[in-house]
Amino acid sequence: MSSLSLLPVVDLIGIAVFAASGAVAGVAKRLDLFGVIFVGFTAALGGGILRDVFINVQPFAFVDWRYAAVAVVTAAATFWLHPAVSKLRWTVLVLDAAGLGLFVVTGTLKALDAGVPAFGACIIGMITGIGGGLVRDLLTGEIPTVLRREIYAVAGLCGCASVATLDALEVQRPLGIMLAATLTFVLRMVAIRRNWSAPTAS
Amino acid sequence: MSSLSLLPVVDLIGIAVFAASGAVAGVAKRLDLFGVIFVGFTAALGGGILRDVFINVQPFAFVDWRYAAVAVVTAAATFWLHPAVSKLRWTVLVLDAAGLGLFVVTGTLKALDAGVPAFGACIIGMITGIGGGLVRDLLTGEIPTVLRREIYAVAGLCGCASVATLDALEVQRPLGIMLAATLTFVLRMVAIRRNWSAPTAS
Amino acid sequence: MSSLSLLPVVDLIGIAVFAASGAVAGVAKRLDLFGVIFVGFTAALGGGILRDVFINVQPFAFVDWRYAAVAVVTAAATFWLHPAVSKLRWTVLVLDAAGLGLFVVTGTLKALDAGVPAFGACIIGMITGIGGGLVRDLLTGEIPTVLRREIYAVAGLCGCASVATLDALEVQRPLGIMLAATLTFVLRMVAIRRNWSAPTAS
Repeated sequence: MSSLSLLPVVDLIGIAVFAASGAVAGVAKRLDLFGVIFVGFTAALGGGILRDVFINVQPFAFVDWRYAAVAVVTAAATFWLHPAVSKLRWTVLVLDAAGLGLFVVTGTLKALDAGVPAFGACIIGMITGIGGGLVRDLLTGEIPTVLRREIYAVAGLCGCASVATLDALEVQRPLGIMLAATLTFVLRMVAIRRNWSAPTAS
Repeated sequence: MSSLSLLPVVDLIGIAVFAASGAVAGVAKRLDLFGVIFVGFTAALGGGILRDVFINVQPFAFVDWRYAAVAVVTAAATFWLHPAVSKLRWTVLVLDAAGLGLFVVTGTLKALDAGVPAFGACIIGMITGIGGGLVRDLLTGEIPTVLRREIYAVAGLCGCASVATLDALEVQRPLGIMLAATLTFVLRMVAIRRNWSAPTAS
Repeated sequence: MSSLSLLPVVDLIGIAVFAASGAVAGVAKRLDLFGVIFVGFTAALGGGILRDVFINVQPFAFVDWRYAAVAVVTAAATFWLHPAVSKLRWTVLVLDAAGLGLFVVTGTLKALDAGVPAFGACIIGMITGIGGGLVRDLLTGEIPTVLRREIYAVAGLCGCASVATLDALEVQRPLGIMLAATLTFVLRMVAIRRNWSAPTAS
């Protein structure tokens, strides 16, 4: 948690944006208020819950109520304000990229701290970033977007690999987090702007 | 496990009813005998397995063979007797509400006993009650019913909050369980009778 | 891990075949390169990850990079070579049956070694064998094949029960693994040849 507590505000912004993305998906599928909040909760915290299950600790989402509270409140607000949220498409994309950068980087460090070797820690870091959206799509009956198009998980993986390398080089944590999260953010934004996507098989 | 062992019969009834609900869903989707039993097993025990994964212990469903045996036998029986089971719709709804009440309340207490704070324990308790049905719906290709309509999870959450409050007030466990499970049961039955449902976004 | 290390080559072959099956499913659903690799990874290692989560240890898939590397490389190769892979249908079925036999048997032993009673260890062993394909199907929007037709999980369960019995009789591990995995393999191959399938409800 120590690395997270360095960036509490950005952390909570990431959770709020992911919760809003889940709530918007839930509203689109005509879920009821509970369903919208539940999908928002899993979109926001599902990646971190998977990470904690894999590194074998009690998920932080159940231990620190502030995370759950932010997710629940954001999802509930989105339920009522969703037309306004939908108009903020560009803002949401930018904040989502920031959330992705932060989640993959702190996820990788948490796995490293739990004794997972670098290769596995990067996979766990990536799952921290994409897991919430993945579960959101499964709950709403969609093949996960992250598996179909766009540079999203790959931008996350670059962040994981960077922070693991910087950590092995004993670069100070706050600096390493900032550099690797920024790299992920920039890659993701450039990918959106230039419409980059991964190849599909012919 | 101590709180569960106070109510072994009700506990097993809850598991049997949830297993039957899973088996009926599996038969409706034309799964084979193995598939019907597997979906019955996950509907009955999936919520408890998720709870135990989150509180970081080996799932009771794999440790105590009686739970698995009841789920497997009930699902197999439902495979052959499903027309009769379908006619018992009202009985199934009543027993399901009883199972929900018991599962959310004992799930909350297990999480509290494992050191999870009250807020997170209530979420874990609710997942104990709705997790099995959720996985059942995912396995049979449906958007989970619990996210779409009816007062189900919310009734469960009221039970979780009640038992956590009673526990904090040091009310004796058996009494607290009975009160909170009854509250959940009554809320759920009234919601069915009056056709209450949570709002959907306009 | 000791029981696995007796059979490292067969083990890696099993992972490669399961990864190829996941990658083929991903290509069929027009996932991009990342999605194909991700589904290949989960098809190959998802069963083992579930097993390790259930017996409450850090998943080997994140601890030993060789497993992940084999899965990722095989899935990526399948992305480019998938027409050739599709022609190998019979070879893939044979190798898949071998992988199933090995996964269920070593999964059962790992669960027994972790202190899970025999009944639960057999269920965990079976999940080790079918879990990857199950998650593969969920990620690609299908009702899991293993629940719908063919003798697959049941062949696996026979292997689990055999190895648990042999272990209780103190038969040496390498011999027990070989016997039980061969039994599973033979059952699965005979079921394919004779077109055996489990009953569906009328």
